[in-house]
Amino acid sequence: MTPRIALDAMSGDYGPSVVVPAALKILSEEKNLELILVGDETVLEPLIADQSAKVMQRLSIRHASQKVEMDDLPSLALRKKRDSSMRIAINLVKEGEVNACVSAGNTGALMATARYVLKTLPGIDRPAIITPLPNMLGKTTHVLDLGANIDSNPEHLFQFAVMGTILTQAVDNLPRPRIGLLNIGQEEIKGNERVKDAAKLIMPVSAINYIGFVEGDDIFKGTADVVVCDGFVGNVALKTTEGVAKMISHFVKESFTQNLFTRLAGLISLPILKNLRKKLDPRRYNGASLLGLRGIVIKSHGSADILSFTHAIKEAIIEVEKNVPSQISHQLTSMLKERRRIE
Amino acid sequence: MTPRIALDAMSGDYGPSVVVPAALKILSEEKNLELILVGDETVLEPLIADQSAKVMQRLSIRHASQKVEMDDLPSLALRKKRDSSMRIAINLVKEGEVNACVSAGNTGALMATARYVLKTLPGIDRPAIITPLPNMLGKTTHVLDLGANIDSNPEHLFQFAVMGTILTQAVDNLPRPRIGLLNIGQEEIKGNERVKDAAKLIMPVSAINYIGFVEGDDIFKGTADVVVCDGFVGNVALKTTEGVAKMISHFVKESFTQNLFTRLAGLISLPILKNLRKKLDPRRYNGASLLGLRGIVIKSHGSADILSFTHAIKEAIIEVEKNVPSQISHQLTSMLKERRRIE
Repeated sequence: MTPRIALDAMSGDYGPSVVVPAALKILSEEKNLELILVGDETVLEPLIADQSAKVMQRLSIRHASQKVEMDDLPSLALRKKRDSSMRIAINLVKEGEVNACVSAGNTGALMATARYVLKTLPGIDRPAIITPLPNMLGKTTHVLDLGANIDSNPEHLFQFAVMGTILTQAVDNLPRPRIGLLNIGQEEIKGNERVKDAAKLIMPVSAINYIGFVEGDDIFKGTADVVVCDGFVGNVALKTTEGVAKMISHFVKESFTQNLFTRLAGLISLPILKNLRKKLDPRRYNGASLLGLRGIVIKSHGSADILSFTHAIKEAIIEVEKNVPSQISHQLTSMLKERRRIE
Repeated sequence: MTPRIALDAMSGDYGPSVVVPAALKILSEEKNLELILVGDETVLEPLIADQSAKVMQRLSIRHASQKVEMDDLPSLALRKKRDSSMRIAINLVKEGEVNACVSAGNTGALMATARYVLKTLPGIDRPAIITPLPNMLGKTTHVLDLGANIDSNPEHLFQFAVMGTILTQAVDNLPRPRIGLLNIGQEEIKGNERVKDAAKLIMPVSAINYIGFVEGDDIFKGTADVVVCDGFVGNVALKTTEGVAKMISHFVKESFTQNLFTRLAGLISLPILKNLRKKLDPRRYNGASLLGLRGIVIKSHGSADILSFTHAIKEAIIEVEKNVPSQISHQLTSMLKERRRIE
């Protein structure tokens, strides 16, 4: 099967200047892939004018007259931008013309549009956003939800656990990914009722490898493969992570540029620091998934560069190959049956 | 006025072996300070036996036959350990024998005991835990609540904003500390109702310098002097911060010890890395406050070393000198009056 993927070519901070080179790069790497660039054809056509006929067999343009801005309200994007590159990319998924779409556009608009156009899978009340974060073991921990929902109830958290299990099985090739519920550490007031009740729903289901409550630092210890939480909490954890990392990187730079000696030391340490940077490079982890929809939608970071955007496309390819949405749907049904048998 | 402070000498991972040297260190620095070591006198007496009469004028021991363990449930500590060093240190605050107490004991037990013995200030429904975190500006951002409460309502968040204002005015000498409400970034679904309603309560009060919603990364950008949030969210943010910092520090160490070249580079960079470590050293920020009680209770990190524990004692001294609890009480009353006039 040849994966066909639509790219929202106008999306992100850099639009076509990142998306088009990323598309060409990945087409040269993945010989069994077709891409559709969605966006303003007058902008896109010149960018691929000198490509060989061979490349053009697997690359096409779909015109879109509008563009969702990074600060457009989701409701505005939904009502007033029906001919946006984002909307049309999602429509292509809906109509079965492509197997997935990738956008670096604004998360709120992307989620609202994808949800409206594609609808949620049977049994899924609310889609969720999941992303991998690096951990101390040199692997990744997937965290969901990262902000698609606030005030998730225990049933939603259960659905997140199911979706997280299936996604990491597919993407990380883990047969039984360890699922942790994000909580706080004090024994007696351990978590709010929501988290406790979610644990009761998740625990008895044998297909979920539930390892219990985890805390914020466990994300980076690699205690669990998937950390499940409410979108408000997940978003705060994600932004906090970005904030700490930026602060430390700022202080590292500052420390090595203070005077001649530190500059020299910095020069000597440069390859090491670069290596370290690479290890923690958020670009390597680019590609959040909007899970729980009847179709595959990947969200790239708005500030993604070419390398980073290709990672998001790769994420889409894997999810197409593993058919993540239909797996979620099937496995959810069987897990709910098991839960009902127990209850 | 001479501040008198009780130290829970049996508390923390290292007990008297950290608390007693920290006490002696700070007595030598602060000439206008009296300390009471609370704990097992048979253990404590030998540790200060060779101190001069001059030191002993300002240092005494109060015997306690029990000790709260780090994993004791708060309810157990409260019911079964009425003669613990923690309980007696708090009792001394209640009875007016000391102006404050410092413990490195378990947070849940400390909060439960302090709340039971001291009670909350008039107008304060729930005490909160506040701690400073380093930010990119080289200053600190105070965050509360860090886990004393879960599911705080808008009124509680308002009270946290009041307490955070007063604490940072006292501790950081800021006339009008900037208060931010922790939220998530998506415009339309900006936060849950709780956070939005809290904003409505905080905004009109002129004595609170409210700057609006902030996100997780703002803690480290220094956008606000105080970040207010629910204890569940705050605890996750704090633990996430610790986790990211540990992971990065782990990778830095790993990078510089890979081979002979990297070890040499590490050797050359050692003073820089040490300096950096010092800048981000959590010991410099040790000393969380249990705010909203009729008395000053400072919580030191369980793994605090001597330097770190002295920082917690210094925090107590400042709060005594600035009389934080009575300031909270007075200012809260006037702020509530202002709010009612507006409503």
